[in-house]
Amino acid sequence: MADLRAQQLKLLAETFGSERIDEVIERVAMLPVEVPSWGFGRGGTRFAAYDSPGVPTTVEERIAAAGRFRELTGKGRTVALHFPWDGSTPDDIARLAEWLDRAGLAAGSINANLFTPRGVLDHRLRFGSLTSPDDEIRAASVEHNLDCIEIMRTLGADTLVLWLPDGTNSPGQMSLYDQAVRLEAAVSTIYEALDDHHTLLIEYKYFEPGMYATAIPDYARSRELCRQLGTRARVLVDLGHHAPTTNVEQIVAFLLRSGDLGGFHFNDSQYADDDLATGSLHPGQLFRILCNLVEGERRGHSPIDELALMIDQSHNVKDPLAEMIESVENIETAYAKALLVDWDSLHEAQDDCDPTRADALLRDAFLTDVRPILAEARS
Amino acid sequence: MADLRAQQLKLLAETFGSERIDEVIERVAMLPVEVPSWGFGRGGTRFAAYDSPGVPTTVEERIAAAGRFRELTGKGRTVALHFPWDGSTPDDIARLAEWLDRAGLAAGSINANLFTPRGVLDHRLRFGSLTSPDDEIRAASVEHNLDCIEIMRTLGADTLVLWLPDGTNSPGQMSLYDQAVRLEAAVSTIYEALDDHHTLLIEYKYFEPGMYATAIPDYARSRELCRQLGTRARVLVDLGHHAPTTNVEQIVAFLLRSGDLGGFHFNDSQYADDDLATGSLHPGQLFRILCNLVEGERRGHSPIDELALMIDQSHNVKDPLAEMIESVENIETAYAKALLVDWDSLHEAQDDCDPTRADALLRDAFLTDVRPILAEARS
Amino acid sequence: MADLRAQQLKLLAETFGSERIDEVIERVAMLPVEVPSWGFGRGGTRFAAYDSPGVPTTVEERIAAAGRFRELTGKGRTVALHFPWDGSTPDDIARLAEWLDRAGLAAGSINANLFTPRGVLDHRLRFGSLTSPDDEIRAASVEHNLDCIEIMRTLGADTLVLWLPDGTNSPGQMSLYDQAVRLEAAVSTIYEALDDHHTLLIEYKYFEPGMYATAIPDYARSRELCRQLGTRARVLVDLGHHAPTTNVEQIVAFLLRSGDLGGFHFNDSQYADDDLATGSLHPGQLFRILCNLVEGERRGHSPIDELALMIDQSHNVKDPLAEMIESVENIETAYAKALLVDWDSLHEAQDDCDPTRADALLRDAFLTDVRPILAEARS
Amino acid sequence: MADLRAQQLKLLAETFGSERIDEVIERVAMLPVEVPSWGFGRGGTRFAAYDSPGVPTTVEERIAAAGRFRELTGKGRTVALHFPWDGSTPDDIARLAEWLDRAGLAAGSINANLFTPRGVLDHRLRFGSLTSPDDEIRAASVEHNLDCIEIMRTLGADTLVLWLPDGTNSPGQMSLYDQAVRLEAAVSTIYEALDDHHTLLIEYKYFEPGMYATAIPDYARSRELCRQLGTRARVLVDLGHHAPTTNVEQIVAFLLRSGDLGGFHFNDSQYADDDLATGSLHPGQLFRILCNLVEGERRGHSPIDELALMIDQSHNVKDPLAEMIESVENIETAYAKALLVDWDSLHEAQDDCDPTRADALLRDAFLTDVRPILAEARS
Repeated sequence: MADLRAQQLKLLAETFGSERIDEVIERVAMLPVEVPSWGFGRGGTRFAAYDSPGVPTTVEERIAAAGRFRELTGKGRTVALHFPWDGSTPDDIARLAEWLDRAGLAAGSINANLFTPRGVLDHRLRFGSLTSPDDEIRAASVEHNLDCIEIMRTLGADTLVLWLPDGTNSPGQMSLYDQAVRLEAAVSTIYEALDDHHTLLIEYKYFEPGMYATAIPDYARSRELCRQLGTRARVLVDLGHHAPTTNVEQIVAFLLRSGDLGGFHFNDSQYADDDLATGSLHPGQLFRILCNLVEGERRGHSPIDELALMIDQSHNVKDPLAEMIESVENIETAYAKALLVDWDSLHEAQDDCDPTRADALLRDAFLTDVRPILAEARS
Repeated sequence: MADLRAQQLKLLAETFGSERIDEVIERVAMLPVEVPSWGFGRGGTRFAAYDSPGVPTTVEERIAAAGRFRELTGKGRTVALHFPWDGSTPDDIARLAEWLDRAGLAAGSINANLFTPRGVLDHRLRFGSLTSPDDEIRAASVEHNLDCIEIMRTLGADTLVLWLPDGTNSPGQMSLYDQAVRLEAAVSTIYEALDDHHTLLIEYKYFEPGMYATAIPDYARSRELCRQLGTRARVLVDLGHHAPTTNVEQIVAFLLRSGDLGGFHFNDSQYADDDLATGSLHPGQLFRILCNLVEGERRGHSPIDELALMIDQSHNVKDPLAEMIESVENIETAYAKALLVDWDSLHEAQDDCDPTRADALLRDAFLTDVRPILAEARS
Repeated sequence: MADLRAQQLKLLAETFGSERIDEVIERVAMLPVEVPSWGFGRGGTRFAAYDSPGVPTTVEERIAAAGRFRELTGKGRTVALHFPWDGSTPDDIARLAEWLDRAGLAAGSINANLFTPRGVLDHRLRFGSLTSPDDEIRAASVEHNLDCIEIMRTLGADTLVLWLPDGTNSPGQMSLYDQAVRLEAAVSTIYEALDDHHTLLIEYKYFEPGMYATAIPDYARSRELCRQLGTRARVLVDLGHHAPTTNVEQIVAFLLRSGDLGGFHFNDSQYADDDLATGSLHPGQLFRILCNLVEGERRGHSPIDELALMIDQSHNVKDPLAEMIESVENIETAYAKALLVDWDSLHEAQDDCDPTRADALLRDAFLTDVRPILAEARS
Repeated sequence: MADLRAQQLKLLAETFGSERIDEVIERVAMLPVEVPSWGFGRGGTRFAAYDSPGVPTTVEERIAAAGRFRELTGKGRTVALHFPWDGSTPDDIARLAEWLDRAGLAAGSINANLFTPRGVLDHRLRFGSLTSPDDEIRAASVEHNLDCIEIMRTLGADTLVLWLPDGTNSPGQMSLYDQAVRLEAAVSTIYEALDDHHTLLIEYKYFEPGMYATAIPDYARSRELCRQLGTRARVLVDLGHHAPTTNVEQIVAFLLRSGDLGGFHFNDSQYADDDLATGSLHPGQLFRILCNLVEGERRGHSPIDELALMIDQSHNVKDPLAEMIESVENIETAYAKALLVDWDSLHEAQDDCDPTRADALLRDAFLTDVRPILAEARS
């Protein structure tokens, strides 16, 4: 097997030039991918959540699994954390810091859980968190974010992720104008509390858990919030948070070009926010997204490694650790292929109105078996 | 108000003829609508499930709420039950029978919970129930249906509803051929166990909880199963279980005409299986569905009152009892309007290739305010 | 019939107060709705376009039909025009002005046809117009818009509508970055050529005729262009130009609140850009859109009558004039109902977290038969 | 390059065994793919259809292009024909036969054009063809199919493809019951006219050109027609004719298993019936479809080469011949990869509830670069 890989690698070098292949190996090796602590536990659906033997159920176990992931893949130096799932008290946070440290990991993005802020399952939350008509609930939801900012300081984390489960289930439930007003006020308070080197990533989602009008349904809304707040606020793109048939790669290119792209929650989906393994169903789409990142970087927009590249999936069936590895490999695969595109020839073909040749160049990269590159990058 | 309604009713009689209006009142009053016991409890999402004060949490409370619903609306004589949610032991079932009886209600359709058959949250269930590769799980899932058939006998219920949460999350997880083979074997065993006067309703759903390939994704699959089983198996249409943009009323007409329509799970949705209040977002669609039922009956297909007309919603925000009343009123509204269509003139216009006139006739019925008819039907 | 309407109107006045009803009648009567000249001709599909007897085929006939529409409905004082469909030469434009004048009509929005700019079906246009890699095509496409601005001056029209058929059919065909760069440059040139009292409305569309990446796929892209250009550029919302399941009314509220909403292309659709009669399939959605306009105006955002309310449909089956009347009536119906909402009580219920009552208030308005109001507004 | 391919092929043989690779080469070489005569001409949209220099515009040129395609790819021995596009008179047909013969081609499936049956653009056709309320139109539409059966006899073609552009644009336009009744009557007449060795393939489509209810919206309807007709009627799956998010591969497996699958119209799409190059956007889906065909054949269902594997695309931008070659290569690629799946190990993993391993096996095949196999198969 190892010998086979070596021969394949040699053929790749003959095809693309060995300098080029070495560069791709290097870049794949250096690509930072963040993994979520919650992703090492078993996921569930609204119908049932099944535990299973050997799958982490405690914070400590999840961090340990993240450590193993790091050993196996070389990725995941930073781990996304979710509070209060990953702890509430100062003691919890201290222990968490220790576990991370022991595993050679660092705290990545910090996610505030707003469906149970501060761990309280208050029934009034069904009317929303940061956009609730209820002043107390709104205040508590802001407070929970401020707690998370404190945790960021403690753990040395730089990124706060804001996803709010706010949305309505009927047209009458809430004025879409009030929803917007309250949203902006709350998010502004949170942003003001951040330190200068902190980044706020604002996630959007077209539906669920709200089934009629979510507070931040799309990238237009998320971007508008970011623009109102300031340069440290950026848009977070979760691949599964778009209406069916949406061209996600075009959104990515738009945000990258306008300087508003903060990062990704990678996953895959057939129907809705299915949270399946990244690239498992739509490898072509993943490739095109990475192509737009690579092309964007070439054009002077944000370098890929300055984006927050995070996996966010729900591992309902497969072993979580295994599915996380599968996912990161699919990202590396798409990235390697995007790097193998002959970009100069591609742009030439495009300028010549020669789509046949242009697509052939993309296909040349996509059809190439880059597993030898991944293997090399790992070692 | 009462006086106003009387005057409105008088105008309706002048417009449509009083005989016609009386007939519509009578038919609306007689329309049987079944409500689910679980619908009187608070619903939730995969993110959180919030209880709330005053909302039923026990079986007894839910049945009592169903009783109040019956008093207030005159509908809901039969109540759909879900096992083991509504009981497991013979004692449970005996108590349930008593509660129903006390509230003047009868057991409606019986629903077997296959994500926790027999109340066991076995982790192997994440690979499916009736289609699981695991023999034990498959057998237990069949057994749970047989238990439910026993409960049907005890409670005098005639209808078993089969919805299975089986579906895969990746292309490799299960052969689509094996999935089909196992499905047919299991369902056949269940069907064989039914008594002669029992009906089996088979529900389909295009996704969730499985995110790649559900075992019964559409009405074609459900209908094929029914055809293989025999005449007592029919298709159950849940309005929220279709791919986006699907023309649901056409499916309804197709199944009614071919004799395969068993009934409905009524609800409404914007995105997926949102389980919102029936008719709350798409009153036009609900009207068209009822139109196709009325037209179908006029053409000699199944009378509407021989179909199982069931509400199946998740009441996450509003008071469940209130939302159930809203929903049944929306069904009555659509039905009354469908009955007010001038069907003879409509068919004439259709035969004359005069869509302008044809649609005007539908609109005449749809734009009519039928609330006086509903009020009269209730009293 | 007239007597019946009078009685119905009396009951409405008793229910809502006669002052209120009078105000609604007045507002419905004053609502400006613009109709497109091309909408009075027969539409077609990519498969076939059938003429039919009596349906206008010349510009003169279409303007005459627009005149009849105005007589029958009181709406359509301004007529949207499409060039070169409605003329090319100065003589054409002079005649057009005369026909409009004779029919008591005025030129409304001016639409530049960019799939055959200047009437030339140049095969290179399949690579795009304003975003084409071909300099000549790009220049000609800009020129055609400048011609249209000249026509605006001649006809005294104030609004230029920009919809471009630009989009790609494969990932390789065009860099999404180049597409954006060229788009911005071309649109900027057009905007600069406008007079100070002119408005530019920029339309977006998620697909078709391009099947992979359209140049302006969504309201985020359109709005960004407007923001870059200046305050006289606004977003045009065509109801059929959104991905399936999109909550269009939320987009409307967002744009209205941020001051970016310029107007509408009204129509209805089940699947894609179907261009069916407005409100014919989704009366609930149309009502909600009008509700958001009415609520927005109440909150101090743009008054409804300052928006460009245009119908844009393809009349493939019904008589075009009849379908236009049906459509405008559906808009008036939705508007009247939105005006009948008890907005104060609604906001109270929303602030009280009482969605049951809130939705009941919306339903009260929606279920009201407002045809007597429309009849009164027309007379 | 040739040397490189040889080395790559050697590595593939080392990985999979040379016998296995030889078999895959053989099977790829033998895979029959049919191409449509209309696909060699320039496609268009409802907005515009641009010709372009060098692209065939006559029947003779299209057949010549099909001949070149055959030379270049070894595929396309049979050519799908469309009437009256490809001829009307006996003389036309005779010439067509000669052109085919000269190019070493044979007539493939025969497609009756029902939006202009017999070349007549009768305005009444906007109400439908085989389902029209107009007796004359219905009769003429049937007649045109009978003409096509005559052409089949003349050209020695065995397959009639039925796709009808029938569908309505509003709920009132046609009773869904009448639509079904007329459809069945007309199709039955056509089926009866076929010879014993003829096959009828019935295509379904969820929308367009009808925008509300198409006569055969889905595979359930198409299959039901086939079942009513007899064993020589089969379902034709066009990949772009499904509602968004539909799992097409599951439909394929279902139809193959039940013996109802007749063949394919291959293409790709992001939004609707986009008719893009097969596999250009969703290579993963194409691979899964081929996997289900390969697995179905292994299980004793229809051999792949007994299905009608046809390309049906609209070449609006690229050179048609080049895009056809791209498409057939994508099909060959997916097929070769499906053949490389280790099916025995896959089923073992599935039976063991080991989805991680199962998906890894699929991925192993998908990630393999099979271009050396294709090159070999071609030579």
